Amino acid sequence: VRTVDNSAATVNPAAAAAIHPILAARFSPRRFDPTRALDEESIATLVEAFRWAPSAGNSQPWGLFPARRGEPEHRRIVAHLAPSSARWAPDAAVLFVTAAHRQVEDTDLLYSEFADYDLGQAVAHLTLQAQALGLASHQFRAFDLDALARELRPRPGWHIVSMIAVGHAVEEEPQQRERRSAADVSAAPWT
Amino acid sequence: VRTVDNSAATVNPAAAAAIHPILAARFSPRRFDPTRALDEESIATLVEAFRWAPSAGNSQPWGLFPARRGEPEHRRIVAHLAPSSARWAPDAAVLFVTAAHRQVEDTDLLYSEFADYDLGQAVAHLTLQAQALGLASHQFRAFDLDALARELRPRPGWHIVSMIAVGHAVEEEPQQRERRSAADVSAAPWT
Repeated sequence: VRTVDNSAATVNPAAAAAIHPILAARFSPRRFDPTRALDEESIATLVEAFRWAPSAGNSQPWGLFPARRGEPEHRRIVAHLAPSSARWAPDAAVLFVTAAHRQVEDTDLLYSEFADYDLGQAVAHLTLQAQALGLASHQFRAFDLDALARELRPRPGWHIVSMIAVGHAVEEEPQQRERRSAADVSAAPWT
Repeated sequence: VRTVDNSAATVNPAAAAAIHPILAARFSPRRFDPTRALDEESIATLVEAFRWAPSAGNSQPWGLFPARRGEPEHRRIVAHLAPSSARWAPDAAVLFVTAAHRQVEDTDLLYSEFADYDLGQAVAHLTLQAQALGLASHQFRAFDLDALARELRPRPGWHIVSMIAVGHAVEEEPQQRERRSAADVSAAPWT
């Protein structure tokens, strides 16, 4: 007997009542429709959302490697997926490899101490733009990082961080999602 | 003679035409209205948006210290602002100190290698929820980190990362914003 309300807008009834629909309805699907593609304009819009994110001192310590399903770039990436992501991620219309600019080229100096923080923020803007376009996103780290770095050869100071699968979710119930309480979010970090 | 179109929705005409309004209109104001407060429900909604962000393995390596203008918590934070942020940040209705859970308590083990990436993502969700509520946000790092850490005493493994000022922007022209091109975002990281 199911007693859990799994509709996308009600993962948390209180939150769903208040937070913006593109936040409330967002989830990371495990299945994408392998028959649907994204047009160039949609992909360009996702990159626009990404690059207009804020960053510390406008340092923009972020980059992408976009790869559409069926293109040679896609095959270069898919070759390095872990078995767990290889089951579903190649079906997404686009895979983006994300990169953070952590150090100044050929030095140990930090390019930005906020490289990963700002990258995460830009990724959030991209994924919410995807949601606004009726698409879904699933970020993951289930790939052979060293092998992918040999394949894509990030410049000195740049580091591959994650991948984002973006496409059309196959209709499914969202996973029952769990989060720490709002009270815990404000209490846990402090003594 | 002004030849630059500085209206909030047209920081980049191509982007503004395509990306979602809460992304296109977002900017980090330098002046907040010191006469306007946020009600409890709005603050709770911001925290909801923050805590429902995705994270690696649902690790949720994030926390907040919310402080409303006029309350004792606010004075504890404002005391440690740098001169540059002390000029404007105290006027915002709320200041949030953000924290990342990087290490497992009392060890060198990583709690999450995505602590800062996921924190940035949750912050983006909060700031976009603020935008959806007609509010504005300005993230900054212009504060005495060591002094603030002595004041708020993050638990072992937790680290203060940034502050977010949220409130009602005083009507102003957005700064002319600059970003690397979309082509550069996809090319810069790779050899």
